[in-house]
Amino acid sequence: MTIPKLQVALDNNTIESALESIKACGDVVDVIEAGTILCLADGMKAVKCLRALYPDKELIADTKCADAGGTVAKNCKEAGADIMTVICCATIPTMKAAQKEIGTLQVELYGNWTFEEAEQWLAAGIDQAIYHQSRDALLSGETWGENDLNKVKKLIDMGFKVSVTGGLSKETLELFRGLDVYTFITGRGITAAEDQRQAAIDFKAEIERIWG
Amino acid sequence: MTIPKLQVALDNNTIESALESIKACGDVVDVIEAGTILCLADGMKAVKCLRALYPDKELIADTKCADAGGTVAKNCKEAGADIMTVICCATIPTMKAAQKEIGTLQVELYGNWTFEEAEQWLAAGIDQAIYHQSRDALLSGETWGENDLNKVKKLIDMGFKVSVTGGLSKETLELFRGLDVYTFITGRGITAAEDQRQAAIDFKAEIERIWG
Repeated sequence: MTIPKLQVALDNNTIESALESIKACGDVVDVIEAGTILCLADGMKAVKCLRALYPDKELIADTKCADAGGTVAKNCKEAGADIMTVICCATIPTMKAAQKEIGTLQVELYGNWTFEEAEQWLAAGIDQAIYHQSRDALLSGETWGENDLNKVKKLIDMGFKVSVTGGLSKETLELFRGLDVYTFITGRGITAAEDQRQAAIDFKAEIERIWG
Repeated sequence: MTIPKLQVALDNNTIESALESIKACGDVVDVIEAGTILCLADGMKAVKCLRALYPDKELIADTKCADAGGTVAKNCKEAGADIMTVICCATIPTMKAAQKEIGTLQVELYGNWTFEEAEQWLAAGIDQAIYHQSRDALLSGETWGENDLNKVKKLIDMGFKVSVTGGLSKETLELFRGLDVYTFITGRGITAAEDQRQAAIDFKAEIERIWG
């Protein structure tokens, strides 16, 4: 079992506030994500700014692309992203078009996706997925449960590199013990902390303790 | 039966090229859409520019929002959008959070959405939907068929205001005769035309001829 990576999701409303966050935790995390909120608010300029600050760090544009995959992927790549995300209900041609441009895709799992669809993604050469507890679902009281963990396990067993996200705290990492999680993604688990750098260090230490 | 509206989707890669298109056809169309490609490329600044040029025209931000509905909607509204889109696989809490901020949502129908889900959207007070032929699906050879038209009709019968989009040309409008379509959305049907203004006028005339 490899040690899961730590990814900070910059779901800020402005580039400026994203830069404030990344200055604090950028050297600690393994992966930097320009969150959907940020991409929609400030466009690919946000990705470019993050790439300028961290030329060698893995950088993800969380576009949750649903259509026009080739064009969106081209723009993401030109801005400096290594990876972009597509939404699970995008068509296979959209995913393939995006993959062709940027090389690596992650499928964001929302709503009523099925394992049959997941087989189709694998068949199309897409082997990364993000298992999501919706932010809004979390706000309305839902949380991680056995059902979620079983689905994550099944995806891993199918051959997916599975990132997990949604309401993660240092304390919830223990829930995933024994699972070969690819990446833990947290936004406000780091960016809403009083000491963002320390929050990132604590996440990394806890991942190391459980999976190291 | 009311006369369907005409919406231009500005799926440009830059604000500058979107402005070039809208200068040509903005006075002709009923609704202006900042397309997903444009929103992701240049952010809410694109919406602000379109609002500045057309203070009184209906303006849609095609965010295809999947999560963090409240935040994305707030940003869209502040930028001047009247309406935003959410993706069909977003959770109901996401849709409700967005609706609360911006007032009017349109659900973008991609992938394996179900009429049971559509009932849930209606129950949540969301009565606008966009029936989509995926751009990438069209590029890979799929097109409008009886199956699509039946689904559009069923959604209208359920009580949805249904916009349709994807590979529409002046010639394909005839396919929808007899259906109470809310809006015809075209991107390159206008923006790729040699004379964009004339293309918009031709669309409007054909809609008037069939539904007027």
